[in-house]
Amino acid sequence: MFNLLTTLVDNNRIYGKQGKLASYIPSLLEADPEHLGICIVELNSGREFHAGDCDTKFTIQSISKVVSLILALSDNGRENVFKKVNVEPTGMGFNSIINLEVRNKKIPYNPMINAGAIVTTSLIYGQSKEEKFERIIEFLRRATNNQNISINEEVYECEKITGDRNRSLAYFMKSNKVLEGNVEEILDLYFRQCSIEVTARDLARFGAVLANDGLAPWNGQRLMSRDVCRIAKTIMVTCGMYDASGEFAVKVGIPAKSGVGGGILATVPRSYGIGIYGPSLDKKGNSIAGLRLIKDLSDELDLSIF
Amino acid sequence: MFNLLTTLVDNNRIYGKQGKLASYIPSLLEADPEHLGICIVELNSGREFHAGDCDTKFTIQSISKVVSLILALSDNGRENVFKKVNVEPTGMGFNSIINLEVRNKKIPYNPMINAGAIVTTSLIYGQSKEEKFERIIEFLRRATNNQNISINEEVYECEKITGDRNRSLAYFMKSNKVLEGNVEEILDLYFRQCSIEVTARDLARFGAVLANDGLAPWNGQRLMSRDVCRIAKTIMVTCGMYDASGEFAVKVGIPAKSGVGGGILATVPRSYGIGIYGPSLDKKGNSIAGLRLIKDLSDELDLSIF
Amino acid sequence: MFNLLTTLVDNNRIYGKQGKLASYIPSLLEADPEHLGICIVELNSGREFHAGDCDTKFTIQSISKVVSLILALSDNGRENVFKKVNVEPTGMGFNSIINLEVRNKKIPYNPMINAGAIVTTSLIYGQSKEEKFERIIEFLRRATNNQNISINEEVYECEKITGDRNRSLAYFMKSNKVLEGNVEEILDLYFRQCSIEVTARDLARFGAVLANDGLAPWNGQRLMSRDVCRIAKTIMVTCGMYDASGEFAVKVGIPAKSGVGGGILATVPRSYGIGIYGPSLDKKGNSIAGLRLIKDLSDELDLSIF
Amino acid sequence: MFNLLTTLVDNNRIYGKQGKLASYIPSLLEADPEHLGICIVELNSGREFHAGDCDTKFTIQSISKVVSLILALSDNGRENVFKKVNVEPTGMGFNSIINLEVRNKKIPYNPMINAGAIVTTSLIYGQSKEEKFERIIEFLRRATNNQNISINEEVYECEKITGDRNRSLAYFMKSNKVLEGNVEEILDLYFRQCSIEVTARDLARFGAVLANDGLAPWNGQRLMSRDVCRIAKTIMVTCGMYDASGEFAVKVGIPAKSGVGGGILATVPRSYGIGIYGPSLDKKGNSIAGLRLIKDLSDELDLSIF
Repeated sequence: MFNLLTTLVDNNRIYGKQGKLASYIPSLLEADPEHLGICIVELNSGREFHAGDCDTKFTIQSISKVVSLILALSDNGRENVFKKVNVEPTGMGFNSIINLEVRNKKIPYNPMINAGAIVTTSLIYGQSKEEKFERIIEFLRRATNNQNISINEEVYECEKITGDRNRSLAYFMKSNKVLEGNVEEILDLYFRQCSIEVTARDLARFGAVLANDGLAPWNGQRLMSRDVCRIAKTIMVTCGMYDASGEFAVKVGIPAKSGVGGGILATVPRSYGIGIYGPSLDKKGNSIAGLRLIKDLSDELDLSIF
Repeated sequence: MFNLLTTLVDNNRIYGKQGKLASYIPSLLEADPEHLGICIVELNSGREFHAGDCDTKFTIQSISKVVSLILALSDNGRENVFKKVNVEPTGMGFNSIINLEVRNKKIPYNPMINAGAIVTTSLIYGQSKEEKFERIIEFLRRATNNQNISINEEVYECEKITGDRNRSLAYFMKSNKVLEGNVEEILDLYFRQCSIEVTARDLARFGAVLANDGLAPWNGQRLMSRDVCRIAKTIMVTCGMYDASGEFAVKVGIPAKSGVGGGILATVPRSYGIGIYGPSLDKKGNSIAGLRLIKDLSDELDLSIF
Repeated sequence: MFNLLTTLVDNNRIYGKQGKLASYIPSLLEADPEHLGICIVELNSGREFHAGDCDTKFTIQSISKVVSLILALSDNGRENVFKKVNVEPTGMGFNSIINLEVRNKKIPYNPMINAGAIVTTSLIYGQSKEEKFERIIEFLRRATNNQNISINEEVYECEKITGDRNRSLAYFMKSNKVLEGNVEEILDLYFRQCSIEVTARDLARFGAVLANDGLAPWNGQRLMSRDVCRIAKTIMVTCGMYDASGEFAVKVGIPAKSGVGGGILATVPRSYGIGIYGPSLDKKGNSIAGLRLIKDLSDELDLSIF
Repeated sequence: MFNLLTTLVDNNRIYGKQGKLASYIPSLLEADPEHLGICIVELNSGREFHAGDCDTKFTIQSISKVVSLILALSDNGRENVFKKVNVEPTGMGFNSIINLEVRNKKIPYNPMINAGAIVTTSLIYGQSKEEKFERIIEFLRRATNNQNISINEEVYECEKITGDRNRSLAYFMKSNKVLEGNVEEILDLYFRQCSIEVTARDLARFGAVLANDGLAPWNGQRLMSRDVCRIAKTIMVTCGMYDASGEFAVKVGIPAKSGVGGGILATVPRSYGIGIYGPSLDKKGNSIAGLRLIKDLSDELDLSIF
């Protein structure tokens, strides 16, 4: 396995040159486009395999949508969550607002687009913004077995400044009563969760928890119910890779979620957790080398669930 | 003329029962749905004719879009304004956001929909928000020959509280760099101008200025250039009555702009200024009795410019 | 006037180089992109002024939409026509199908887009396709005072072959019961009317009939009712120049209709009929030199109706 | 298993009363809305279990989209097919045309919506329309181990008459060069394949072939490559249940495809083929009782692949 990972990382690292770093925040531009790393946690053996830049920190960005979905479901139950956000994929981009207007039912298409994640974030329990954020980061610490998980303050500040499209989405939903509560507070929480720093190793462990039906493999602790875990994995398959989700399902065939920080969280039910880092992105916002790496891995290990 | 107006008001007052008052702000619901009034200023004679509730105050609402267009054009020139807002009609509703997303060029369709008016408002010159608002209200005072024009503070406060759809539009445009400056300040100015109180008589005089190519008929003072005046009238024809503009042009055939406060500002080039008040609205947000009244008037006096 | 026209044609002819000939039909590509001609019929004097290529034949294309609107209105009355086609402008392109799907009411936006003109064409009375076409061409012969008006068979055959987008629109409306009757027959009539050949002089006379409220100035014959004439002119202002109608209204300010054959039919109520020919088109499908010519003319003669 | 199926059918049969039969074709209205049947083929044992109306014939309708996808992929290879049709889910309805217009790339979203299936049908090899259809029906005969599979001529004739929306989609794609060849011939083939009659038992066997990676379990014959089989199952998960695909994935979690004839084809990789019949439909066009039945079954047998 170790040799395989090393070979695949070496083969695909070069594709970083063909993509672009996310540029809407200056500090994202500081990443090295040829960085590429992977970590795999094998459920059976409990072993971690890795290759490349698997301990480089990057911001979790949209992968946090999986966390807010899990917490919203755990706190509110699926019925209450799916009154506020649908679970249908959409062919539109991740920050599309047309989706909110055209349909009769004005709730977001799914929890993996920005509008939907703003809704799930708003549904997380907590007495205060701080408590809610504490619950998010604490969940991630336990799901990654890494107590050092913390926020990148610089990215957070920038997210807040450049977040006007998300403000637009949020106020739109507020005006339709899909979103309740203080919009700026909800957005602040949303920007914070996007700015949490992780590594490919962290994501692999998180993926292992998902693969293991919600139980942390290293200590048997249940982090979410089996049902919540299954819903999260299902929505990752249908909507996890932005508007390339369908193509990813055909080519790779496993639940995954990407972020513009360059991360990919993936999970093979009952088998593996996978974390990937490659900051250079394709046009749809997915890690360009990371996508190739995970496709090669899926072909080699026959990972597709279909 | 006086008899004609009285008859037309009497005939059409009953249609107020078939519409609905604007309800998004409590104080708008205090209006009497059977109120109906008209005032006409004849350019030739300088005389004012009126009938019905022509001195009842109401908030100007979307009719203020004509004012911000005029000031934006006067301050910036047509080229600079039309870089930021198009002049094409749209079949969509006045607060549609789909219009901003679908097209390649992400500027609003025209200055008579909310997104477009937020842009023109942002272009009005002034050192401060207060100075900008002072310029707007002073323009209206001169265009109505009424120094008592002022704001309805209660409506203004409510506009601000309920303005989330407009916030969504504004942040969307801010994220696309169509809107520049502080969004909340621009919106505050926008909400203020919508909350200015006028009467049908005030609107008739404003219409007379437009009919007179920008010169106040009562004192010969030029309030805008002939070119700006013509642009305003043209856009009123193509886009002034929300998504019923085309039908209004066919049935009535004169430049007009309505507001959800129940007002209609209309103008017959070289002939008349017309102001109407009837707070009960049809489904598209136009005064239901007012529309019928102005249609009857156009038929009687053969007002269509086509 | 003659000198003015000559100067304006000379000044604007060069802009033909900046546009493109319509290319979807081979024979349209045979036109000379630097051809430019204008003819004006003055109602008062009955005189015709012309300059440039005003006797070059070209296919009428979308200008025929004015004819089918007039005949549909005359045959069915405005209420029956406007049950089947709206009169609202649309910011979308002339052959957009999204317009038919998004709205609740699935009728076309207006009679100047393809979908709307297919509907008005379907409403023209006649026992057979041949009789209907005979009525269309006979109307044009009388409106242009030119008995030689006839069809360009080559263009007609090509329209038929390349008309799949129009077929799509028609079957869409058929499936929604907006269009009744045999789709291929209706389309055949539609393609035929688009393929009628005219000159700038012909269009100027047609414009003079419209300017004269429906009476042919040369023999006093009524070709349509005053009401139908007014509706046609109104819709030409709001929707006549594809999705540049709003800009045209602001810059030129008179009822006009363009076609991809390079023609522009324009009319100044109570004053002039105007015909223009310039086959090189801008991106929106309007004659590029023709637009500049008519704008200059409007500025010189102060033609705007606003 | 037999008892379980009987209980589930009995429990869910009543929901047929809450739905509606497809009504666009008269003969579809002749079905009994309380019919409900299921058949399961177990790969391990090769046994067939069934309950309820599992031998009632109905037309395959949209389930044929799986067949045309499989044949198009087998004939052309995935690269050539996915140049002409995407694999992204869409939140829009199955016959939406907006999807074709809004996006830059004008190919259909996926092969499970009508536009996409018209494309895959057009890609099936064959010298003539007849030969192509023979290949489709022969494939189904082998995949169902039922040589008696044939077409319902009455439904076919009606599909042809009422198929204007599909004509609209096809001509739209023809005009964009996405569809090649004779549109009416392609549509005829499409209507034919929709009119093939099957039973729940037939579908269960087809599902077993898919579950078995493309090999017919009863004779070991390979009906498609493993890769084609996997692609088909993947697209069934992301797009198989119209715009309820996302919800179905969350609730049931297995590849499935429904048709308005009341059928559901489902497959549990490596385990089961499932066929269901229940002609009463919900608002999205899926069998209303059938959906509940398969959800209960998935819960009981823990079928979700996630």
